[in-house]
Amino acid sequence: MRHRIAAASAAAVLSLIGATGIAAAQPAGLYAPSAMVFTVAQGDDDASTVVRASTLSCAPTALGTHPDPGSACAALNSTDGALDRLLASPDPDRACPMHYAPVTVTADGVWKGSRVAWKHTFSNSCVMAATLNGNAVFAF
Amino acid sequence: MRHRIAAASAAAVLSLIGATGIAAAQPAGLYAPSAMVFTVAQGDDDASTVVRASTLSCAPTALGTHPDPGSACAALNSTDGALDRLLASPDPDRACPMHYAPVTVTADGVWKGSRVAWKHTFSNSCVMAATLNGNAVFAF
Repeated sequence: MRHRIAAASAAAVLSLIGATGIAAAQPAGLYAPSAMVFTVAQGDDDASTVVRASTLSCAPTALGTHPDPGSACAALNSTDGALDRLLASPDPDRACPMHYAPVTVTADGVWKGSRVAWKHTFSNSCVMAATLNGNAVFAF
Repeated sequence: MRHRIAAASAAAVLSLIGATGIAAAQPAGLYAPSAMVFTVAQGDDDASTVVRASTLSCAPTALGTHPDPGSACAALNSTDGALDRLLASPDPDRACPMHYAPVTVTADGVWKGSRVAWKHTFSNSCVMAATLNGNAVFAF
């Protein structure tokens, strides 16, 4: 099956999909799993409506509905699973109005075999953009 | 860009990927997002080691590292986001030993725009298999 897929002309993309499927089906395989789902919601509580969501798997290859899985996995790797670090380098040159129109972001799943459940509420979307400062994880 | 991708010979698979990326980048678009991450861990608490994980996105198309995204999305759809329903049709013909070697499964993310955070611990892997009874969601 994998041979037939790899023989197709879009071999690179397709064999990544095949390889990830096989790895996910193995019990406790070569790679500690890293699979996450990210959401962006309007509001500040659990009843918030999710407006965007994105999935990401980082081992053995970066893959997901995230528009830039490679950069997102690299950014996650630099947090080492402590997602508060995404908040640590805000854009110092950006000013935001201080009105309250909260945006809540979440990251759930597993990072290198350990569960992750992270949530942060920004007071508005400008504060979110300035705080995350171009980080790839929530750039979807 | 999409035209060039669609012109490649594996047009079906590639255009699915393209379409999902574009939809995820839109704010509050045509589709309420459905994006989940599933894990299977040995143990019964949050410190359990995750042995397998899988991502799944269901709108606009079924996609993810899950080995059978189409069936998994159909199975989720039949629960309508109430994942306890996955436990409702155990295999009546299967007997399991009652030793305690717990397996915990989780489902986190968003289903049709609403957050989902679900966890269930089975007393052992036989009980898990008999209870889920071939359901596609955790068949990875």
